[in-house]
Amino acid sequence: MKLSTLTVVGVGLIGGSVGLAARRRGVAGRVLGVSRPAESLGRAWSVGAIDEGFVDAAPAVAEADLVVVCTPVDHVAAEVLAAAPHGRPTTLFTDVGSTKAVIVRAVDGRLPRGAFVGSHPLAGSEKRGLEHADADLFQDRVAVVTPTPSTDPAAVQRVAEFWQALGANVVLMSPEEHDRAVALTSHLPHLVAAALAGILPPDQHHLAATGFRDTTRVAAGDPSVWTGIFRQNRSAVLAALDRLGERLLLFRRALEADDSGTLDHLLGQAKKVRDALGSCHPGQGQ
Amino acid sequence: MKLSTLTVVGVGLIGGSVGLAARRRGVAGRVLGVSRPAESLGRAWSVGAIDEGFVDAAPAVAEADLVVVCTPVDHVAAEVLAAAPHGRPTTLFTDVGSTKAVIVRAVDGRLPRGAFVGSHPLAGSEKRGLEHADADLFQDRVAVVTPTPSTDPAAVQRVAEFWQALGANVVLMSPEEHDRAVALTSHLPHLVAAALAGILPPDQHHLAATGFRDTTRVAAGDPSVWTGIFRQNRSAVLAALDRLGERLLLFRRALEADDSGTLDHLLGQAKKVRDALGSCHPGQGQ
Repeated sequence: MKLSTLTVVGVGLIGGSVGLAARRRGVAGRVLGVSRPAESLGRAWSVGAIDEGFVDAAPAVAEADLVVVCTPVDHVAAEVLAAAPHGRPTTLFTDVGSTKAVIVRAVDGRLPRGAFVGSHPLAGSEKRGLEHADADLFQDRVAVVTPTPSTDPAAVQRVAEFWQALGANVVLMSPEEHDRAVALTSHLPHLVAAALAGILPPDQHHLAATGFRDTTRVAAGDPSVWTGIFRQNRSAVLAALDRLGERLLLFRRALEADDSGTLDHLLGQAKKVRDALGSCHPGQGQ
Repeated sequence: MKLSTLTVVGVGLIGGSVGLAARRRGVAGRVLGVSRPAESLGRAWSVGAIDEGFVDAAPAVAEADLVVVCTPVDHVAAEVLAAAPHGRPTTLFTDVGSTKAVIVRAVDGRLPRGAFVGSHPLAGSEKRGLEHADADLFQDRVAVVTPTPSTDPAAVQRVAEFWQALGANVVLMSPEEHDRAVALTSHLPHLVAAALAGILPPDQHHLAATGFRDTTRVAAGDPSVWTGIFRQNRSAVLAALDRLGERLLLFRRALEADDSGTLDHLLGQAKKVRDALGSCHPGQGQ
């Protein structure tokens, strides 16, 4: 895939990495960055993530073949809807949001068919900001692309090719299916990590060793970003919490009964899943 | 501290690391290893973790100044009680178990005052076995030493000096206080990681990205080892589960009410704790 102009709205960890990866891999003739505040444009330019920076989206979108909106989830739909009128008829929009149904529903029907396809590259970390951007962030990671029955297949194809060009393995899912899956694989683990960190008494910080640090690492993520994600995926996260609650109850009953067979079984099931995942990135050697 | 003879019972990840660290740092004139099966003694010797290997504890204990029992928690007390009669009057015993109250209660009163002091170095990982042993495993880590009112202070001092000589920062706590603390910092996170891994449907493995992998990493630990830990620390783990349940309920209510202020607050509290811990090991730069 070769785009003439790629526009990235929001140049933090993900947007900066999209720009770096696209430039490094020759996926776009040039990369335009849109950001308020303007300071981050200078930094994005100096690390090589963008060729030109814009505080206003309109002129950057007017020249774009593809616009990737990389803002927190609660701003994505509004950014897309505000920017779309400035694009050409062929300008395609996608995003990188960790939730999809609310975003896709808000955009679908308000834009011409083929103007928007939702995406979620499963990359990133508890870190935030351009200083952690990485041209290889998407390499061998999964990028979920979420068409609906009304999405133009040619647009889906172009967005899928874009993520593949950045090194990702593309998986197609409906927005709702995506949201239920990431509720279990990402949002619930985040919530639980935050709960574990939140109940650690300050006088026991020095007793938190590697296990605690691994288990709670994601809880260092930006609260406002995650509040937006949880709110947009409320029903799936609540369903995931129910499922966790059932599993915790099995552990509780086994502990109360001092039932070593059940404890061993529950821990064995978990080990089997965890061993199957391995320590590598998704898509690497699997 | 300089011991003439150190005996390590069990030469897996922790026992092997104790031997490697003691030899590398000149903490002991020689290190004797005890293990059934005998194969692991050959490997322990070849990696430099022990000077001599014994299948039977008796002769290795007879020559020891200090015996460190590094078996799964459900075998520690029995190993100590069986080995103690073979030691000299001055032979001191300690262990590395992740639980302390059950072990210390089982040993206290059955051995002469000053013969045993419980320890728990907060090191190790979901990995197991001698191949992961590391001479620096205890460097800058916390080692908890758990005297009771009946423990000889001179023995406590010697055990504390031993862990310090291996590079650890020693913290003294009662066995019960230790168990309540690690229920929150280690056992509950392990249980939750196992619950999260256990409810991941197989068809969603490919969607488990870095966050899920970090959060569930410890669930790869050996089920039988962890069943023993959970059983020995049942009441503190159940209390920790209650605390987690209360916190999860706050999240649930905030989600149900779509209450962004409370979500933000809960996530912010967690981030504050997680940021305070940092990504380094306990004791490093803190």
